[in-house]
Amino acid sequence: MALRACLRTKPGLTGLLSQLSSCSSHGAAHMSPALVAQRRSSSTSQKIKVDFDQSTGVAVMRMQSPPVNSLSLEFLTDVCIALEKLEMDKSCRGLIVTSSQPKVFSAGLNILDMYGKSPEHCVEFWKAVQEMWLKFYGSNMITIAAVNGSSPAGGCLLSMTCDYRIMADNPRYSIGLNETQLGIVAPFWFKDTMINTVGHRTTEMALQLGLLYSPAEALKIGLVDQLVPEDQVLTTATETMTKWLAIPDHARQLTKSMMRKPTIDKLTSNREADVNNFVKFITKDSIQKSLGMYLEMLKRRKA
Amino acid sequence: MALRACLRTKPGLTGLLSQLSSCSSHGAAHMSPALVAQRRSSSTSQKIKVDFDQSTGVAVMRMQSPPVNSLSLEFLTDVCIALEKLEMDKSCRGLIVTSSQPKVFSAGLNILDMYGKSPEHCVEFWKAVQEMWLKFYGSNMITIAAVNGSSPAGGCLLSMTCDYRIMADNPRYSIGLNETQLGIVAPFWFKDTMINTVGHRTTEMALQLGLLYSPAEALKIGLVDQLVPEDQVLTTATETMTKWLAIPDHARQLTKSMMRKPTIDKLTSNREADVNNFVKFITKDSIQKSLGMYLEMLKRRKA
Amino acid sequence: MALRACLRTKPGLTGLLSQLSSCSSHGAAHMSPALVAQRRSSSTSQKIKVDFDQSTGVAVMRMQSPPVNSLSLEFLTDVCIALEKLEMDKSCRGLIVTSSQPKVFSAGLNILDMYGKSPEHCVEFWKAVQEMWLKFYGSNMITIAAVNGSSPAGGCLLSMTCDYRIMADNPRYSIGLNETQLGIVAPFWFKDTMINTVGHRTTEMALQLGLLYSPAEALKIGLVDQLVPEDQVLTTATETMTKWLAIPDHARQLTKSMMRKPTIDKLTSNREADVNNFVKFITKDSIQKSLGMYLEMLKRRKA
Repeated sequence: MALRACLRTKPGLTGLLSQLSSCSSHGAAHMSPALVAQRRSSSTSQKIKVDFDQSTGVAVMRMQSPPVNSLSLEFLTDVCIALEKLEMDKSCRGLIVTSSQPKVFSAGLNILDMYGKSPEHCVEFWKAVQEMWLKFYGSNMITIAAVNGSSPAGGCLLSMTCDYRIMADNPRYSIGLNETQLGIVAPFWFKDTMINTVGHRTTEMALQLGLLYSPAEALKIGLVDQLVPEDQVLTTATETMTKWLAIPDHARQLTKSMMRKPTIDKLTSNREADVNNFVKFITKDSIQKSLGMYLEMLKRRKA
Repeated sequence: MALRACLRTKPGLTGLLSQLSSCSSHGAAHMSPALVAQRRSSSTSQKIKVDFDQSTGVAVMRMQSPPVNSLSLEFLTDVCIALEKLEMDKSCRGLIVTSSQPKVFSAGLNILDMYGKSPEHCVEFWKAVQEMWLKFYGSNMITIAAVNGSSPAGGCLLSMTCDYRIMADNPRYSIGLNETQLGIVAPFWFKDTMINTVGHRTTEMALQLGLLYSPAEALKIGLVDQLVPEDQVLTTATETMTKWLAIPDHARQLTKSMMRKPTIDKLTSNREADVNNFVKFITKDSIQKSLGMYLEMLKRRKA
Repeated sequence: MALRACLRTKPGLTGLLSQLSSCSSHGAAHMSPALVAQRRSSSTSQKIKVDFDQSTGVAVMRMQSPPVNSLSLEFLTDVCIALEKLEMDKSCRGLIVTSSQPKVFSAGLNILDMYGKSPEHCVEFWKAVQEMWLKFYGSNMITIAAVNGSSPAGGCLLSMTCDYRIMADNPRYSIGLNETQLGIVAPFWFKDTMINTVGHRTTEMALQLGLLYSPAEALKIGLVDQLVPEDQVLTTATETMTKWLAIPDHARQLTKSMMRKPTIDKLTSNREADVNNFVKFITKDSIQKSLGMYLEMLKRRKA
């Protein structure tokens, strides 16, 4: 349903999806396990690399959108398509999400999709952000975030949608919803997701101050579940997945749905109002000016 | 009211209740305190031993249903009758719930009441489970769980309905809602009770994985409030009760009701739907098969 | 709006407000920064001392109502007027609330406004308590409580309405909602505020037992955010404020409102019922007797 909703507004995607399905993991369903093991890699788009291991039922989704896996409209669409395909494959029970880019998991929403763009573009962009969240937070699969780098704003949101978060224990990395630092506001479903993860009080302070936490701090407040040395993030995620796979899928899925449905329903029944709020807010002169200043600051920092 | 609802569906209980009242703690109300102190013991059924000390206003309910205090339809009914009687006795202000069986507080819902049984039986069984929860979670008395052994699933639920939980510090014991490990799902009010106890995030992970916690882990996440050596569980419960008894009943009761009413109302206004959901789920072939396999495993482990 | 509501029931205040405005911080708006810095002090009433530093945008509100800053009808009205004035001044971005009385932040609601008073007086008093909470919990300003002494009941509530709480690390001080110890009950919005601060389970136990926490305990459960030596409470509050001031006001305010609006709306849409509940409860013979005994006990303790 979610994908259909996404496709409704982006008809061009249907063709893309058909094209991609020819080289997808689904094509592997008819091969012997040995063959599958040999050619596990099956990229969905250039910016997303999905390796599905039919023998374990676990897929690894690597974000490789240089330089920092910014969640652009295009990239979000690719992520949603890749997730939807795995979701439809009954043999895929678990998903590990990680980054192929050095030092960053995802830098969050792509500011260039919100700065100097038409309201129509902002509408499309925000629908894609909603879609990503709805798909991940409501996934029937076991989802584990292998957070092998910094994960601000939308990157933090993505990791919070997962069932378990393992972060690289590198004090140079940080994670958090730092929207207010940019002069913008995390919408109610970002907030709800964070409350479900770290509780009301921690969320209130984190969101007001736009706090970015070091891995150690994030572990302390429960924003991530486990810290491991950087080179062990993915292997730990794989080991952790084994524990989750031991639980019967139907019981785990019903339980997950029971926990998350109220939060998901809140956005589902307010999608349009939420889009309107976002577009009205983000297209304000004052907010555009804030974003412009932030982009200038980023450029200067680079130079 | 709750007992009446229970009796409505189990008319045979009325007679039982009358019979029992002759040897109940209520009979002691007309004796002098000294006499009462001498004969404090007043068992309600063979599987429940209730000692009410009129001088302190505190009752101790010992579960003694061999081998593991499984919450069968019959046992749940006995527990509800015993609780209802104490509740109606204004002189009874506090209740300590504990186990007379070695190594176990309660093994939880009796699987034999859910396996190979008629839908009608499952309906009766589930109503009794609801009744037990409603009575304990909504009790006007101060309730303290003296968790002197393992307490999985329904046993954990029972302890969570209490105002305070003291557990034996024995690493061989465990506590938690492990339903998913059996291929079944904790209903929404089990979930709500756990969220009220340990918060949303801990509940989400605990329920999905069906986690059983060691006493030390349970203390850390707040699933129990205090650990003491095994032989001090009951004495500590009695000492703790003294602290709670110092608070004026009316203020404490209004406060407790304010905290728990929303959660209780949710089940009260959805009892029938919840029964239907349970029966529909538990009578599924696949679920019956899961339960059968679990029972086989238990038998093999015993042998 | 809130002030208007307050004034509606207390027409005499309008005059008071006009009088006070002549010597208020607003009068300083037309002076040069240098002059303002020189005469920052601008008391609103004898019981409230407000120092507004135009150069930083931060006001310090000192409660100086001897002996223990009891929240009487009169004092609550003064506090509300002082807050409303700061709120209307766009140049005032942050507020630090502290006490000028030794050893106490605020002793909470003034019992003499609830004991032996007419129902009409109780109505006025409770509306003022509601007003204080609505104004502080919904303030657009950054609010920091510099808790430099004990803070039971209403004093704890006042500190919980703030965005951040710094407490003097003196083990002789305590903080908590201890209403049940007096035989009265914290209303639902006290409870909601505490749940938002320390979570459901801690609140349930704290409110039932009327727990007063030492600073160290309060820090552990998250009832306060930071402990410092007694003579550094205010300076730490000022330093902390600087961090909060770095966040753009509009983004922080929208975020704060998003977090708190549901809790505020709950009281706003139930103010009258809440007043009626309070008055009906507090004017009961049994409750009046409890309060009388408590007052006697306080007198004896003094002597």
